[in-house]
Amino acid sequence: MGLTLSIESSAKACSVALTDGRTLIAQYFLNSGLTHSQTLMAMIRDMLDTSNRAISDVSRVAVAHGPGSFTGVRIGIAAAKGLAWGGDIEVVGVSTLLAMASVFDTRDIVCAVMDARRGEVYNANFRCDGVVRLCDDRALTLDALIDEAASANTRYTLVGDGAELAHARFRERGVDVALAPDALRLQSAYGVAIASIGVEASGDVEPNYLRLSQAERAAAINS
Amino acid sequence: MGLTLSIESSAKACSVALTDGRTLIAQYFLNSGLTHSQTLMAMIRDMLDTSNRAISDVSRVAVAHGPGSFTGVRIGIAAAKGLAWGGDIEVVGVSTLLAMASVFDTRDIVCAVMDARRGEVYNANFRCDGVVRLCDDRALTLDALIDEAASANTRYTLVGDGAELAHARFRERGVDVALAPDALRLQSAYGVAIASIGVEASGDVEPNYLRLSQAERAAAINS
Repeated sequence: MGLTLSIESSAKACSVALTDGRTLIAQYFLNSGLTHSQTLMAMIRDMLDTSNRAISDVSRVAVAHGPGSFTGVRIGIAAAKGLAWGGDIEVVGVSTLLAMASVFDTRDIVCAVMDARRGEVYNANFRCDGVVRLCDDRALTLDALIDEAASANTRYTLVGDGAELAHARFRERGVDVALAPDALRLQSAYGVAIASIGVEASGDVEPNYLRLSQAERAAAINS
Repeated sequence: MGLTLSIESSAKACSVALTDGRTLIAQYFLNSGLTHSQTLMAMIRDMLDTSNRAISDVSRVAVAHGPGSFTGVRIGIAAAKGLAWGGDIEVVGVSTLLAMASVFDTRDIVCAVMDARRGEVYNANFRCDGVVRLCDDRALTLDALIDEAASANTRYTLVGDGAELAHARFRERGVDVALAPDALRLQSAYGVAIASIGVEASGDVEPNYLRLSQAERAAAINS
């Protein structure tokens, strides 16, 4: 069994990781404002070079398949498929939201939240002593999520690039909530690596957008 | 105020980070088995290049000044001073152990532990709702640390490259203890960046080894 190369490019930040089972060999995180198309492949190349490893040491690529930014998710999956091309490398897609939760070790409810714009969030909730999924990945309004949290017995801990936004709104509405510490708050490729353990590659990895792209909505209206 | 470049090379893993205040722009973590002298400067160069930033954007270098591996600490401090040379860049040293604790947000006692060999650990304890130091950085036997933890009212959470080793020994001795989640367990340059906030540069940064090097011990015996 070779190494796993993981890619997280579903939001503004981008990260790549190299792991051997659960052991992190290298991780490169970038939130510089540059687009992923400018940085992702360079980050992978630098990480392999600096680790003194080659793509031939990699037997599987794990990629966050969404939900998230349409462009970011597409670039991540395209890069994963490109790296696997012709090599003896399998590609595994994992949920962006599950990947975020996978770095936690807590009995509290980890509430993964990404900003989906227009008052909506992408969300799933997990109990993280072993990572038990409590609902499917979904798109819903932030207010609907807060209603749900308000009627739950356990306090939610917010994680993800939508966590700060959600935290402010939870507080406005007087609903008690915790914010994950900075170092765990943003999605990371290490989370993707952990979430991919035990997942079998099955067919083609497809983006999971949870809703129609702007272009698809426009086409649907016009048809 | 420019950016802060942080260096953590006090143990087997090595990491560098670029931050703007508390905001992480980039972090590069490597635990590949290569020596820091082979990788550290390449990681910094790659990170600046990929972030589209230059050393002229950096106004301060923060470095973990120990305790830790003699060679690792020396390389980190040398690199920090080299980068600052001639530029308008200040160098700030922070405790390796404080840096580890700085990424936590908990009322539990965070017990930072590095393997100091020969049955000893480097350790300091912190309460991390705001990061309050509970003792000085020190070298002590692992058993003395466990005696202390056994008589404390609050459970310790172990962090650092000595955490797994310490965890096994705590359990052998029947003392309840928690292990920090993987993603926070090893020292990181982001922790150094956070620990350095508000610290003023004052004079030369010196390594803090907490004890004599092998060579110094040999010289002392022979003199």
